[in-house]
Amino acid sequence: MFLHGPVRIYLEDTDAGGIVYHASYLRLMERARTELLRRAGFQQSQTFERDLSFVLHTMTLRFHAPAKLDDEVLVSCALTGANAASFTFAQEVVDARTRERRCSAEAVVACISLSQKRPRRLPRELLEFLQRESAR
Amino acid sequence: MFLHGPVRIYLEDTDAGGIVYHASYLRLMERARTELLRRAGFQQSQTFERDLSFVLHTMTLRFHAPAKLDDEVLVSCALTGANAASFTFAQEVVDARTRERRCSAEAVVACISLSQKRPRRLPRELLEFLQRESAR
Amino acid sequence: MFLHGPVRIYLEDTDAGGIVYHASYLRLMERARTELLRRAGFQQSQTFERDLSFVLHTMTLRFHAPAKLDDEVLVSCALTGANAASFTFAQEVVDARTRERRCSAEAVVACISLSQKRPRRLPRELLEFLQRESAR
Amino acid sequence: MFLHGPVRIYLEDTDAGGIVYHASYLRLMERARTELLRRAGFQQSQTFERDLSFVLHTMTLRFHAPAKLDDEVLVSCALTGANAASFTFAQEVVDARTRERRCSAEAVVACISLSQKRPRRLPRELLEFLQRESAR
Repeated sequence: MFLHGPVRIYLEDTDAGGIVYHASYLRLMERARTELLRRAGFQQSQTFERDLSFVLHTMTLRFHAPAKLDDEVLVSCALTGANAASFTFAQEVVDARTRERRCSAEAVVACISLSQKRPRRLPRELLEFLQRESAR
Repeated sequence: MFLHGPVRIYLEDTDAGGIVYHASYLRLMERARTELLRRAGFQQSQTFERDLSFVLHTMTLRFHAPAKLDDEVLVSCALTGANAASFTFAQEVVDARTRERRCSAEAVVACISLSQKRPRRLPRELLEFLQRESAR
Repeated sequence: MFLHGPVRIYLEDTDAGGIVYHASYLRLMERARTELLRRAGFQQSQTFERDLSFVLHTMTLRFHAPAKLDDEVLVSCALTGANAASFTFAQEVVDARTRERRCSAEAVVACISLSQKRPRRLPRELLEFLQRESAR
Repeated sequence: MFLHGPVRIYLEDTDAGGIVYHASYLRLMERARTELLRRAGFQQSQTFERDLSFVLHTMTLRFHAPAKLDDEVLVSCALTGANAASFTFAQEVVDARTRERRCSAEAVVACISLSQKRPRRLPRELLEFLQRESAR
């Protein structure tokens, strides 16, 4: 399982309810997916040049107890499934100290050809990397 | 069904992929829920004063074709279910001109006592309003 | 003087201090500049296609009293100067009801050739439009 | 001079122009100010409890060359002045590798009593800390 962080919660992430704004968790989760893909050699700015893009297809989110200003969180990302042109990741945002869950998600990410705007086969080396990384 | 918009897509809503950033759809959908609740007399800044908060419990999102810079979108919100302390809304972001779907979601929103930080019964007049509004 | 709005303040615009997050004013002001340019026929998605981009060069901001959740604000934009390749706009975010100032700014926006990544002469018809619009 | 980072540029920070969205620099700069204040023992969630808030009064921004997706940046913060109830900070966002400037700013931050909503004398130990830290 890949862990990103600790990531600090700043004012920008919060709202007038005094807690993390719900959409901020999607930003945190996207950072973790991005860092995991970067490790695999699939840095986003370069995939764009290779006519390859990873786009979110579906996402299921569950909001547990809210994170707060100044907290530090960890964001996990583990491959839980794949087919020809998409991956499924399980993700969690947890408190860095107590490991209490703040938000958990399942994200299905499709591999897209930017020029043809249609699904495209997952690069094999990427899939193998994600499988190894998630088995640890 | 309640429709919010048309809402313009600005640079702030987009990302370097040239399309709307995925978490921006959650902001758009929250605006529609907020406006629907306002119509019912449950303006957020006032619910805070009444020790009442509506918090997102779960959200399931499906990303269809992306909206783009300068597009106008409509955001719908319809009550599809309710229990003692939560509502379920079906929501869609569609292109204002073509009505093509950009993102669709199901959101379960819990009614919370801010002081006790625990679920609290839905105000009856709110539930009745949402049922009437969604039946139209 | 061009007025954009009223624009509602949503949770997304606020922070845990209970007020509008400071960077949100820049988003509001950019929406007003964008709508003013659109009126002039310079819709952003089309200027990109014409190898033209308007980029912020400098911005001076003054934060007065904060806007709050559920407020409605108006965002003004008036041309106050121009040279060969840039405009200067004066902008204000004011409460839609009381007209109290929330944030005021001066923004210098440069006209850029996207392909050459260097300044480029302002389109004459755009300058004339902005002068007429700001004189009203 | 206090340096925060390196901080990665993610999709959330960019816009359809392919570069960092201008308001994102304010978020980056606020993170640096927050971390500097935290080092001084003035963690934001605790200052709120002590009836103390630091609010941005004015900010002057200059946008140099834009940062891009996947870049890493450093964000500096140095005290350049202070009076009874406010500080002045000079800040820069620079590329972490080349040290090229992306955005520079001067920020005047006022010390506010939350309950009385008026300026309040800077805590002496904070001022001394910032002076020491900025002299290094």
